[in-house]
Amino acid sequence: MSYLIWIPISVGFLAVLFAAYLASYVLGRDTGTHAMQKVADAIFKGAMAFLSRQYQTIALLSIFAALLVATVLYFLSQGGQDQRVSLAWHTALAFLIGAACSGIAGYIGMYVAVKSNSRTASAATRSLGEALMVSLRGGAVSGFLVVALSLLGVSLLFTAFGGLTRPDLAPNLIVGFGFGASFVALFAQLGGGIYTKAADVGADLVGKIEANIPEDDPRNPAVIADLVGDNVGDCAGRGADLFESTAAENIGAMILGVGLYLATRDLGWILFPLVVRAFGLIASALGLLWVRPSVVVEPDKAAGRDPGEIAMQQLNIGYWITCALSVIGVFAGSYLLLNSPTVTGNYGIPAWIWFGLAGTVGILLSVTFVYITQYYTAGTWRPVREIAAATLTGPATTIITGIALAFECTALPVLAICGALGLSFFLGSQVHFPTIAGMVQVVSFGGIFGTAVATMGMLMSCAYILAMDTFGPITDNAGGITEMSGQAESVRDITDALDGLGNTTKALTKGYGIGSAALAAFLLFSAYLDVLFAYKKTSDVYRVDLADISVFIASLIGLTLIFFFSSLAIRAVGAAAKRMIEEVRRQFRDTPKIMAERVEDRVDPDYARCVDISTRGALRAMILPGIVAVLTPVAVGVLLGPQAEAGLLMVATMGGIVLAVFLNNGGGAWDNAKKYIEAGYLRVDHDGKMLDRLDTSGTVLGKKSEPHKASVIGDTVGDPFKDTAGPSLHVLIKLLSTITLVLAPLYVFLHP
Amino acid sequence: MSYLIWIPISVGFLAVLFAAYLASYVLGRDTGTHAMQKVADAIFKGAMAFLSRQYQTIALLSIFAALLVATVLYFLSQGGQDQRVSLAWHTALAFLIGAACSGIAGYIGMYVAVKSNSRTASAATRSLGEALMVSLRGGAVSGFLVVALSLLGVSLLFTAFGGLTRPDLAPNLIVGFGFGASFVALFAQLGGGIYTKAADVGADLVGKIEANIPEDDPRNPAVIADLVGDNVGDCAGRGADLFESTAAENIGAMILGVGLYLATRDLGWILFPLVVRAFGLIASALGLLWVRPSVVVEPDKAAGRDPGEIAMQQLNIGYWITCALSVIGVFAGSYLLLNSPTVTGNYGIPAWIWFGLAGTVGILLSVTFVYITQYYTAGTWRPVREIAAATLTGPATTIITGIALAFECTALPVLAICGALGLSFFLGSQVHFPTIAGMVQVVSFGGIFGTAVATMGMLMSCAYILAMDTFGPITDNAGGITEMSGQAESVRDITDALDGLGNTTKALTKGYGIGSAALAAFLLFSAYLDVLFAYKKTSDVYRVDLADISVFIASLIGLTLIFFFSSLAIRAVGAAAKRMIEEVRRQFRDTPKIMAERVEDRVDPDYARCVDISTRGALRAMILPGIVAVLTPVAVGVLLGPQAEAGLLMVATMGGIVLAVFLNNGGGAWDNAKKYIEAGYLRVDHDGKMLDRLDTSGTVLGKKSEPHKASVIGDTVGDPFKDTAGPSLHVLIKLLSTITLVLAPLYVFLHP
Repeated sequence: MSYLIWIPISVGFLAVLFAAYLASYVLGRDTGTHAMQKVADAIFKGAMAFLSRQYQTIALLSIFAALLVATVLYFLSQGGQDQRVSLAWHTALAFLIGAACSGIAGYIGMYVAVKSNSRTASAATRSLGEALMVSLRGGAVSGFLVVALSLLGVSLLFTAFGGLTRPDLAPNLIVGFGFGASFVALFAQLGGGIYTKAADVGADLVGKIEANIPEDDPRNPAVIADLVGDNVGDCAGRGADLFESTAAENIGAMILGVGLYLATRDLGWILFPLVVRAFGLIASALGLLWVRPSVVVEPDKAAGRDPGEIAMQQLNIGYWITCALSVIGVFAGSYLLLNSPTVTGNYGIPAWIWFGLAGTVGILLSVTFVYITQYYTAGTWRPVREIAAATLTGPATTIITGIALAFECTALPVLAICGALGLSFFLGSQVHFPTIAGMVQVVSFGGIFGTAVATMGMLMSCAYILAMDTFGPITDNAGGITEMSGQAESVRDITDALDGLGNTTKALTKGYGIGSAALAAFLLFSAYLDVLFAYKKTSDVYRVDLADISVFIASLIGLTLIFFFSSLAIRAVGAAAKRMIEEVRRQFRDTPKIMAERVEDRVDPDYARCVDISTRGALRAMILPGIVAVLTPVAVGVLLGPQAEAGLLMVATMGGIVLAVFLNNGGGAWDNAKKYIEAGYLRVDHDGKMLDRLDTSGTVLGKKSEPHKASVIGDTVGDPFKDTAGPSLHVLIKLLSTITLVLAPLYVFLHP
Repeated sequence: MSYLIWIPISVGFLAVLFAAYLASYVLGRDTGTHAMQKVADAIFKGAMAFLSRQYQTIALLSIFAALLVATVLYFLSQGGQDQRVSLAWHTALAFLIGAACSGIAGYIGMYVAVKSNSRTASAATRSLGEALMVSLRGGAVSGFLVVALSLLGVSLLFTAFGGLTRPDLAPNLIVGFGFGASFVALFAQLGGGIYTKAADVGADLVGKIEANIPEDDPRNPAVIADLVGDNVGDCAGRGADLFESTAAENIGAMILGVGLYLATRDLGWILFPLVVRAFGLIASALGLLWVRPSVVVEPDKAAGRDPGEIAMQQLNIGYWITCALSVIGVFAGSYLLLNSPTVTGNYGIPAWIWFGLAGTVGILLSVTFVYITQYYTAGTWRPVREIAAATLTGPATTIITGIALAFECTALPVLAICGALGLSFFLGSQVHFPTIAGMVQVVSFGGIFGTAVATMGMLMSCAYILAMDTFGPITDNAGGITEMSGQAESVRDITDALDGLGNTTKALTKGYGIGSAALAAFLLFSAYLDVLFAYKKTSDVYRVDLADISVFIASLIGLTLIFFFSSLAIRAVGAAAKRMIEEVRRQFRDTPKIMAERVEDRVDPDYARCVDISTRGALRAMILPGIVAVLTPVAVGVLLGPQAEAGLLMVATMGGIVLAVFLNNGGGAWDNAKKYIEAGYLRVDHDGKMLDRLDTSGTVLGKKSEPHKASVIGDTVGDPFKDTAGPSLHVLIKLLSTITLVLAPLYVFLHP
C-alpha cells in the first residue's frame, strides 16, 4: 500500500508545474500602455516591499518560536533523552519547513498576482473573455501553489520522518509543519488585513471625503497603498489561511488515521487524506481549465444582460465541475485505500461507500456555504436591501440594522455545519473496526473519521476557490490601473464587470474559509485527544467534561479570547490608519500642487511614503494580537492541564466560527448595501418609502445623497470587520489547534 | 434543624413590611405643583397601562405554558402514574406561583416607583438630600419586594410541598417556581426593553433631530412614552430579572443541598441558601438606612465639588456596609447550618469557615464587577475618552472604536468570574463529605457547593442593588418632570445631579446582573446534573463531554442561539420604533399648532397615542424572540438528549455572559461618551488633537458640534444594545437553566 504515497507526491509536483504553466501564460501577455505599466510598477514595488519586510519579521519570529518549541519539548516532555531529542528536532524542523513553504507559496503567488493586474487591464482593452482568463489564471497560480506545496510538504516530511516504516509515529512528528503554517498565516493575515484597511481608510477618509476626489484618483497619495493593500490582504493573507487549513487538516486526519492503522495494520487510512487532496487538485485543475474565453459573453453582445453575472455563472459552472469530479475522486480514493478486509459496514455496504458518502457531505457543505454567503451579502436578497432601506433614516439605523443582520446570519451557517458534522459522523459510524488492545472505544472512530473525510471533501476544491479569491484583488487592481491610466469608457465597463465579480468571489471564499475551518476544527480536536491518548494510555483523555470546573473556566477564557483578539485586530487597524490619515493630510497641506486646478500644473503625490507608512504601521500593529493569540492557549494549557486546554480549544473554535461569520457577513452586507445604492437601485416614492429594486417609478437616491453617506459610514465600519478581524479569526482557530497539538507533550508532562 | 425555616419566612415577611414602610414614606410626601402632577399623571397612566396589558399577555402565555408543561410531564416522564401526576401538578402550580410572585413584585414596585418621581421632583425644589431620600426609598420598595417575595415563595412552597419531612424530594418539585419566574422575566425584560428604546428612538430621531427641539420638551409627542419607557425597561424589567436570579439561585442551591443532605442527614445544607438570603435582606436594609439626608452635601455647600459625586460616594458607603454585613451574615449562616459532625475540613479548619470564605469570594466579586463596569463606562477613564476622541474623525470611527472597546471589555469581567469560580471551588473542595451509597463521587461536591455559596454571597446585596437600579428611572423621570413643568435652574441642577447618579447606578446594576447570572449558571448546571442523576442513577450523567458529537453540536447551537436571539431583540426595537417614528411625524404634520411660534398658541400633542403605539408595538415584538428562546433548548433536548442539552446550556451561558458584557458596556460607553461631550470635556488644540479632560486651554467641542453629532449616532446604536438585547440575555441564560431543570424528566424519558 505504501507505493500510493507516490500519488500525492507526483500530483503535487505536477500541480507545481501546472502553476508554472499558468504563470508563464500570464507573464507572457503584454503589459499594456506605458501609463498602465507606471501604475502597475508602483503597486508591484509596494506589494513586494511590504511582503519582504513582513516575511523578514515573520522569519525572525518563526526562528525564535522554533527554538522555543524545541527547548520546551526537550526539557519538558516525557520519555528518555533520545526520545525527547528526536521529538524536539523533528518538531522544530517541521515547523520551519511549514513556515517556509507557506512563505514561498505566498511570495510566488503574490508575485504573479501583482504582475497579472496590468496584463488584465491591457487584456480588457481587447475583450472581457481575455481579461477574465488572465486574471483568473493569475489568481490560480497562487491557488495551486498553496495546495501543492502543502501537499508536497506533508507527503515528503511524512516519508522523510520514516512514515513508511513506522507510520504510527510519523504523524506526531510532523505536527510542527501545521503549527509553522499557522504561525505564518496568523501574522500574514493580521499584517495584510491591517495594511489593507489602514490604507483604505486613509484613502477614503481624507481623499474621498475631505478632499472630495473620486475613488482611485491619481491625486490621492494613498491610492497606491490602497491598491497594494488589496493584494497583501486578500491574496497573501487568504493564501496563508488556506495553506494552513490544508496542512492542518491533512496532519490531523493522518493522526486519526494512525488509530485506524493500528486496528487494521493497513497504511491506507493514513495515506488517504493525502491521496484525496491530490485528487482534489486534479478536479480543481479541470474545473479551472473549463473557464475559457469562448464561454463568456462580451458586453456588446450581452443583449441587456449583465455580462458580469454571465461570467459569474461560468465561474460557478467551473466550480460545479470541480465539485462533481471531487465526488468521484473521494469515492475513488475510498475504494483504493479504505478497503481493509477486517473493516465492516452496516447493512452489508462496504466501508468505502460510507466514507465516500461522508466526503460527499463535505463537498455539499462547501456548496451550501457559498449560497448562504451569497444570500446574506448580495444585493438581490433581503438582507442587503434591509440595510439599504435603513440608510433612509440615517447612519445610526444603518449600523443597527447591519449589526442585527450580522447577528442573525450566524444561524444558517452554523446549522449547516452542525448538519454536516452530524451526518458525516453518522455515515462514518456505520463502519466498524476491529478493537485495538488497550484502547477502550469510548468514541466511535468510524464516526470521527467520517467527519474527517467530510473535511477532506470540502477542502478538495481549495485550489479552485483560492483562484477565485485571488482573482478578486487582481481585477480590483486592474480596475484601478484602468482608471488611473485614463482608459476609454468601454474598457472601464469590462474592468467594472470583473471588479463586481471579484467582490462576489471574495465574499464566497471567506464563507468557504470559515466553513472549512469549522469542519477541520472538529477533526483537529479529535486528533489532539488521540495524541493525549498516545501519551497517557487512558481513555479518560477522550472526555472533555464541561462539568469539570477547570474545563469550564478554560472554555470561558477561550471564548473571551476570541472577543479580545477581535478587539485587538480592529484597534490595530485604527492605530495604523491614524498614521496614514495624518500623512495624507500632510501631503495635501505641504504640496498644494497635487490638487492644482489644471492637470498640467499637477505634481504626483509621494505614493511611496504612504506605502512605507502603511507597511511599518501594519507590521508594528500585528505583533500584539499575534502574541496574545499564541500565549493565551499556552498559558491555559500550562496552568490548567491538557483536558482544560481541549475545552478552550473547542469553545474558542465555536466562538471563532460564530464571530467570524458575524464579522465577515456583516461587513460584506454593509459593503454591498453601499454598492446597491451606488448602482442606483435605491428608489423611494413621494412618501420617502423604499421601492422594490425592479420598480423604476420613484426617485433614485444615488451617490452623494444622504442615504449614500450613511451607507459609506456602514461600509467603513464593516471594513475592519470583514477584512481584518474576521479573516484573522479563521486563522486563529486553526492556530489554537496546531499549537495545542504541538505542545501536547508539555501539558501532559506538567499534568501527568 | 427544621425550625430554621422560620428565619427566611419571618425575615421575608419583615422585608415585605419594610417595603410597605418605605412605600408609605414615599407616598406620604407632597406631589409637587399642579404642572408637575400633570406630567406625572401622564407617566403614571402610561406606565400602568403598559404594565397591565403586558401582564395580561404574559398571564395568558404563562397559563398556556403551565398546562403544556403539566401535560408533557404527565405523559412523557418516567415512574408510576401517581408519581407523574404529582410531578405534573406540583410543577405547574409552582410555575404559576413563581410567575404570579414575579408579576406582583414588578407591579407594586413599579407603582411606587412611578409615584415617586413627582415627589422626587417636588423634593428637589427643597434640597438634594430630600430628593435623594425619596428617590432611593421609592426604588427600594421594588428592591425589597422582589427579594422578599422570591424568598417567601421558595420557603413556603418548600414547606408546603413537604420539604421538612422529605427534604430530598421537595426541591425537585419547586423548580417550576424558578421557571415561572424566568418565563415572566423574559417577557417583562424583552417587552420593557423594546418599549423603552422604541420610544426613545422615536423621541430622539424625530423630535431632537428632525424638529430640532431639546430633550424632554413638552412639544415632543413621544416625550411621555419616553419617560414611561425608562420605568418599564429599567424598573420592571430589571426587577423581574433579579427576581429570577434569586429564585433560580435558591432552588439550584437547594437541589445541590439535597446531595449533601443525603450524605449527612442534616437539613442545614438545604436550608442554608434561604437563611443566607434572609441575612442578605437584613444587611441590605441596614445599608439602605445608612443613606440619609444628613450625609449628603447640598449643591450650594459643595465648594466646587460635584454634589452628584459626593452623593455617589454615600451610596457606595451604603453598599460597602451591606457587603461588610453580608460577610458577617454568610459566616454566621455557615456556622449555624453547615456544621454537620461528619463533615471535615482540611488543615483542621471546620467546614463553615471554608464555606464562609467561599461566600466572601462571591461578595468580593460583586464589588469587583461594580468597579470594572465603572472603568469601562465612566468618563473619567480611558475607554470613554477613547470614544470621545474617535468622534473627532466622524461617526464611522466612533462606531469602530466603540465596538473594539466592547470586544475588549469582555476580558476583565470574565477573568473575574473565572477567578471567583476557581477560588470558591477550591475553598469548597477543602471540605469532605461522607460518601453516599450508590453515588460515585466524580465531582467534588464540596467544590461545587463552594461555588454555590459564592453565588449566594454575591446575591446577598441584591435588594440594595435593585434599589440603586430603580433609583435610576425615578431620577430620570424627576428630571423630565422638572424640565416639562418649567422649574428654576437650581432645581434642575439638583435633578441633573441625581440623573447623572442614576445613570451610573443603572450601569453598575447591569454589571451586577450579568455577574450574578454567570455565577448562578454554574450552580444551575450542577443542579441539573444532580437532577439527571436522581433519574438515571449513573455517574455518567456528570459528564458533559464536548468530544461527544451531539454535545458539540448542541453547544454550537447554544452559542448561536445567543447571537440569533440578540438579533431578534435588536430588530424588535427597530420594528417598534418605526411605528413610533411614523406616528410622531404624523402628529407634527397634521397638528402644526404643536410647534406654534408663541407658547400661548401651542396645543399639547397626543401623548397617549404614542404611549399606545409603543405599548402595542413592544408587546407584538416581544413574542418572536421569546418563543425562539423557549423552543430552541426544548428542541435540542428532545432531539439530542439530556447530556447534549447540558452542553447547550453551558456554552450558551458562556456566550450569553460574554455577549451581554459586550452589549451592555459598549452601549454604556457610547452613552457616556456623548455625555462627556455634552458636559464640555471634549477640547482640542489648534491641530485638532484632543486635550486631557482637565486641560482647559483648547477649544471646547460641545453640543451641536460635529463630534457631538457623531456621539449621538454612537449613543443611538448603543441604545438597543444596552437596554434591550444585553439585559434580555441575562434573563435568557437563566431561562435556559430553569427550563432545562423543569423539563429534565422529559429528556430522560426520551433518551433513557
